Amino acid sequence: MPTLPYLLQQENICRIESDRILIGDRRVFPFEKTFAACSSVEQVATALQQMVTQGGGPLQVALTTMRFVAREMALGRLPFSFAQLQQSVETLCASRPTNTTMRRTLHELLSILKPNWSNTRNTLDRLEQEVSRIEQYYDEVYMQMGLLGSSLIEDGDVVLTTCFAEHTFLLSLAYGAEAGKRVHVLVPETRPYLQGARLTAPSLVELGIDCEVITDGMGATMLSTGQVKRYMTASDVVCMDGTVVNKIGTLANALAAFHFGVPYYAFSISPDPTKMDRQAVHMEERNADEVLLCRGLPTTQAGIKARYPAFDIIPSSLVTGIVTPKGVLAPDQIRGRFL
Amino acid sequence: MPTLPYLLQQENICRIESDRILIGDRRVFPFEKTFAACSSVEQVATALQQMVTQGGGPLQVALTTMRFVAREMALGRLPFSFAQLQQSVETLCASRPTNTTMRRTLHELLSILKPNWSNTRNTLDRLEQEVSRIEQYYDEVYMQMGLLGSSLIEDGDVVLTTCFAEHTFLLSLAYGAEAGKRVHVLVPETRPYLQGARLTAPSLVELGIDCEVITDGMGATMLSTGQVKRYMTASDVVCMDGTVVNKIGTLANALAAFHFGVPYYAFSISPDPTKMDRQAVHMEERNADEVLLCRGLPTTQAGIKARYPAFDIIPSSLVTGIVTPKGVLAPDQIRGRFL
Repeated sequence: MPTLPYLLQQENICRIESDRILIGDRRVFPFEKTFAACSSVEQVATALQQMVTQGGGPLQVALTTMRFVAREMALGRLPFSFAQLQQSVETLCASRPTNTTMRRTLHELLSILKPNWSNTRNTLDRLEQEVSRIEQYYDEVYMQMGLLGSSLIEDGDVVLTTCFAEHTFLLSLAYGAEAGKRVHVLVPETRPYLQGARLTAPSLVELGIDCEVITDGMGATMLSTGQVKRYMTASDVVCMDGTVVNKIGTLANALAAFHFGVPYYAFSISPDPTKMDRQAVHMEERNADEVLLCRGLPTTQAGIKARYPAFDIIPSSLVTGIVTPKGVLAPDQIRGRFL
Repeated sequence: MPTLPYLLQQENICRIESDRILIGDRRVFPFEKTFAACSSVEQVATALQQMVTQGGGPLQVALTTMRFVAREMALGRLPFSFAQLQQSVETLCASRPTNTTMRRTLHELLSILKPNWSNTRNTLDRLEQEVSRIEQYYDEVYMQMGLLGSSLIEDGDVVLTTCFAEHTFLLSLAYGAEAGKRVHVLVPETRPYLQGARLTAPSLVELGIDCEVITDGMGATMLSTGQVKRYMTASDVVCMDGTVVNKIGTLANALAAFHFGVPYYAFSISPDPTKMDRQAVHMEERNADEVLLCRGLPTTQAGIKARYPAFDIIPSSLVTGIVTPKGVLAPDQIRGRFL
């Protein structure tokens, strides 16, 4: 596997150090490489709610938090019970409502552990083993999807993205580069948090991949000139009918890509079999005041109102393909492979 | 005419005070209400190039600068000649290449003055009279187009805009409000300069019109939900084939409006009869470093590259109507009425 950029190295996403969980603070990267320190599951949930990490970060944080809970139970600092584990899971799941991968992964963990749960060291060992198994599974998925993604990219491509498309997208580019494909990436800055400018662009530079930052209104412009060959993003949810949910701003570019005949590929490590279509998606509307700040500075005068729906819903008609652990699928193949 | 908001009052756009031209600095509004002071035509051109004012501002600044030139000639501080006037015009025109209203208006002024030019006080009086006539013409055009624009708006409308659409758009809303139409405006912040957040939103608040700021990636989202009833922007150029050129970010919203069946109206005080189509448009590519700053703070780490084409080209197929001094025209009516 190519060397991951700083932001995607496990110890920088999340790790346990002495009695605390350290979460890499993506809100201040690359200006600061700092960590939010959490001493309880509740503090982790608050950190997730406050966007200390985002995208694929919460899943990794949640798995590390499960290790932390096991340790706390072993040390007698948390009640040793399945109910406690369940409660920790629900606390984490409540922190971000739209992306369901964390929720489904943790619930799968609970369902595996529930039948043979006993308040013994043995159960805690099993919890840790299962967490390791899941982490390893996702590592393999990232690698596999990175290879799939790289097969969609051609030498000389200009690729448009949105937000921070994490392991699968970055590995696609890295594998492509290993195979000698020169790629140029156009990176919308992704307001209000600037994940594109702050997270994606520096990670691409680390990987040695050429890129340029644009404002969020420029994606359509770049697509209109014919220079962009593909549009590629992560996804926070993929529904069974091929609907893609991703960071707000994704729809505008998907519409423009469709209009100008540029293929749009979304990466999904785990399409959600509990969501048939957009009706089932829980849309997170965040505090609108976040829109009125950029790196902590107000963007307008006090008292002006704003809106902040956090995600876009992209209808399957705008999606060329979804890169999944089961291959690159057309939107209408998702149901048959994941339900 | 309804009371104009602070930003559109003539003395705040531009005025002569003692020996200087003061230009309202739209780069820092509403945080500061300051003026750039210019003592020469060259300094005015530099201020325009540096975006001290933008959109419709440069036209007004140019007209005031013509008064300033007349005065400087009268005082013997500038050579008294038609060649000097012509040179001043060219210096101003070179400052911003895409919007051609200033250029065409100043060239019209030159062509009026040329036949009977004499180096007398009388000629300078005529120059000042012509400038007044042109200013009055545009004031009437603003009012008339504001009334036309207000006829396109219905009570209860949610209107999406982009950037700062100046007199014609704001007067449309103000006349609409006078007629009892309640309107809610969604204002993309318009990076990198934040004209939407900084100029449009405070002006709407001054006019008592309800509004919310969104990020530039959210226009399509708002259009997708069916809540937006019309999309309305200014235009920097309208070509004879109905092509609209406006601030970058306009195209993404126009595409989304088209896709979701929402009408798109552009305001143009002066379609350009010298530009048949997009091929004739001189596209300004500004210093990309401007994209990497927000209110002076860097948005990412040093050394990251960026792109900054300043304008979008919106094909006539995406435009419902163009509000002009000759009425609300379909794009294919422009040639017949303005060529």
